[in-house]
Amino acid sequence: MNKININRLEKYLEKIANFNSNSSLEEGVTRLTYSKEDKQARDYILNEMDKLGLEIKIDGIGNIVGIYNPKNIKSEEVILTGSHLDTVTNGGKYDGVVGVVAGLESIRTIKDNNIEIKQPVGLVVFVEEEGTTFGSTLIGSKYFSKNYTNQDIKDHYDDQGISMYERAKEFGLSPEKGPLDIKLEAMLEMHVEQSILLERKNLEVGIVDNIAGVNWYKITIKGETNHAGSTPMDLRKDPMIPAAKIISEINNIINDHPSSTIVGTVGKISCHPNVPNVIPGKVSFTIDIRDIDNHSIISAADKIKCYIEKICIGNNFDYNIELLGKSDSIKLSNRLKNIMKEKAEDKGIKYTILNSGAVHDSAMFENLTDVGMIFVPSKDGVSHSPEEFTSYEDIEKGANILLETIVELAK
Amino acid sequence: MNKININRLEKYLEKIANFNSNSSLEEGVTRLTYSKEDKQARDYILNEMDKLGLEIKIDGIGNIVGIYNPKNIKSEEVILTGSHLDTVTNGGKYDGVVGVVAGLESIRTIKDNNIEIKQPVGLVVFVEEEGTTFGSTLIGSKYFSKNYTNQDIKDHYDDQGISMYERAKEFGLSPEKGPLDIKLEAMLEMHVEQSILLERKNLEVGIVDNIAGVNWYKITIKGETNHAGSTPMDLRKDPMIPAAKIISEINNIINDHPSSTIVGTVGKISCHPNVPNVIPGKVSFTIDIRDIDNHSIISAADKIKCYIEKICIGNNFDYNIELLGKSDSIKLSNRLKNIMKEKAEDKGIKYTILNSGAVHDSAMFENLTDVGMIFVPSKDGVSHSPEEFTSYEDIEKGANILLETIVELAK
Repeated sequence: MNKININRLEKYLEKIANFNSNSSLEEGVTRLTYSKEDKQARDYILNEMDKLGLEIKIDGIGNIVGIYNPKNIKSEEVILTGSHLDTVTNGGKYDGVVGVVAGLESIRTIKDNNIEIKQPVGLVVFVEEEGTTFGSTLIGSKYFSKNYTNQDIKDHYDDQGISMYERAKEFGLSPEKGPLDIKLEAMLEMHVEQSILLERKNLEVGIVDNIAGVNWYKITIKGETNHAGSTPMDLRKDPMIPAAKIISEINNIINDHPSSTIVGTVGKISCHPNVPNVIPGKVSFTIDIRDIDNHSIISAADKIKCYIEKICIGNNFDYNIELLGKSDSIKLSNRLKNIMKEKAEDKGIKYTILNSGAVHDSAMFENLTDVGMIFVPSKDGVSHSPEEFTSYEDIEKGANILLETIVELAK
Repeated sequence: MNKININRLEKYLEKIANFNSNSSLEEGVTRLTYSKEDKQARDYILNEMDKLGLEIKIDGIGNIVGIYNPKNIKSEEVILTGSHLDTVTNGGKYDGVVGVVAGLESIRTIKDNNIEIKQPVGLVVFVEEEGTTFGSTLIGSKYFSKNYTNQDIKDHYDDQGISMYERAKEFGLSPEKGPLDIKLEAMLEMHVEQSILLERKNLEVGIVDNIAGVNWYKITIKGETNHAGSTPMDLRKDPMIPAAKIISEINNIINDHPSSTIVGTVGKISCHPNVPNVIPGKVSFTIDIRDIDNHSIISAADKIKCYIEKICIGNNFDYNIELLGKSDSIKLSNRLKNIMKEKAEDKGIKYTILNSGAVHDSAMFENLTDVGMIFVPSKDGVSHSPEEFTSYEDIEKGANILLETIVELAK
């Protein structure tokens, strides 16, 4: 049986955790797309790829691929594995990075151990998975998988109103170059679970069956800015009131929904001018709705939209409901699941088949190639937080399944 | 009858409106305490004071007084008038400035027309009335009237966590110098109404009877940051949900309160980390409660606190209720009101006696001297907004009552 070297993997992961814009006094990791820290992490991975002799390709917006292709390989179809290096603001050090370093270490093990492969193996690093900088998740993998064009990159803006296209150019990339042309045999991604099922069941690895779909909305309610002291209650048009009612009702609609796997979140809110003694003129917030069943997402979104209409029209507020992004739920490859199960059983690893509530980069490849995902446990189910934690024991087990799956596919 | 020169007053006001950090493409005015634009506006007023030969004094945090004191005046007690130059973010050009320029123009008229006065007349410009920079309103006038000490100035911070004391030093002031020692005969302030009573009744001027008290709270609710996709609804601790319920209920409590003059506002909200695909770990918001009757404020605040406790304790959320500031409601001087009424009647100005829902700098002088306030109409009741508007016709009438009241007091 093949085995990765967990000490090397740990070194990779801890090194990347240092590329962090948080101060040394703060817990957690912040590494935003196209930031200085992102550049440092990218350069580190590029250097490691180079040391392994990988053939490096970078697309127009900065997705990186490093292909291990010893001379005797005739097939053009690449077994791709990897994930992302960007984090949410004040997130943890595992999310995304675990998948990148597990892929890197798998390729290093194949090379160092002279494991015979008959197909090239590629490590991929996607940009802007989290959507923290340009307002929408999975931009890098959507571009890589040709679900997004350069126009989409021009249509995503940061908080300063500058497009991702412009920011890519400032970062030294050439967005006009477009995506890469790479034929794929399979897309494999290892990732932290970001939920508590594995921990609760005392399991070491999860093999993903379905990935939940997600619809992402921005709701804006407009009222009238006015002085908080001198404007009588009956003459106000305060958009904070319908916003609060709607946010509260979103929670009710999701909790009362017949689907047991649906979730809904208001994670971002802003209010203008956001001053204690001024009645807001505008309140905006996001809604994130996910489920394994696409129809459930639509039915919950419809109920929420009805409630927003009722509250806003009934109280004479202008409002806007914008679909910021969506991805459909996905059933992953049975072929890959079966290989992973077999490898987990061979190694005596405690695993289960589960669904993913979070969407991941590899899901974007559904229509291009077979997709497989491996989850490793998240302590207390926490992620996108400084408290995010996965043990190296579990990471090692997940990475060994990844390695063996790659080797099996490359036979 | 004495009369101010409205063309000169207009020139003062329009000049000050240009000291504005908004871009030329934006409507509205932003002039924050100790900003470059604040410095420009202060320098402009100091220069105008100097041209009038006023004796200029500046206290430790930048409150400015210019005293007109022709040689024949023996009394030490100053008839003070003025207001503030700072604005909220994206506010209008009238709030505060109208009172400063009406005072300046009144003194100029007294000087230019050689109107006999037997008491010195002072123009005062208070810093940080709006509380936009250091988180609490009326800091300048509280310091001037010795309701605040230097310790209070050290305890107020800007968004970067730097105290007002430090910022005053950076601005070139000497906060260790403390407040000024000035004996007062009266404190007069002209201000925009910031409500719609005068406009609705087709009146030109309001003479203020009571100023509402205000209690200002910050509510913080702590939950658990987590991934919005992979955390099932029953395992979440999302503080946005109790926050939404509480904000909605605050509105109900205020609307159902027996006092017809009470108002309550949630004008500022923040959420951490404020990312669409992350369940917030913390939500904070402010509550501003005002009424002419202090007991009503307390009873409404108690009901709100009870509801916060019920929701947070009942759902196992940590929470914090912080009183950020308060000022009691105030009954203004009957002596000054009677003079103002008489002057309005003499000039045939359509006036009424009204209450102020907004607190103003002059209210801080309640225990020091007689306080009088004149309101001029706000179009549609709008203030703290780019749409803020008061006609120069109305400003002229208000300023003439101010002038005549000063002259009457100085006889």
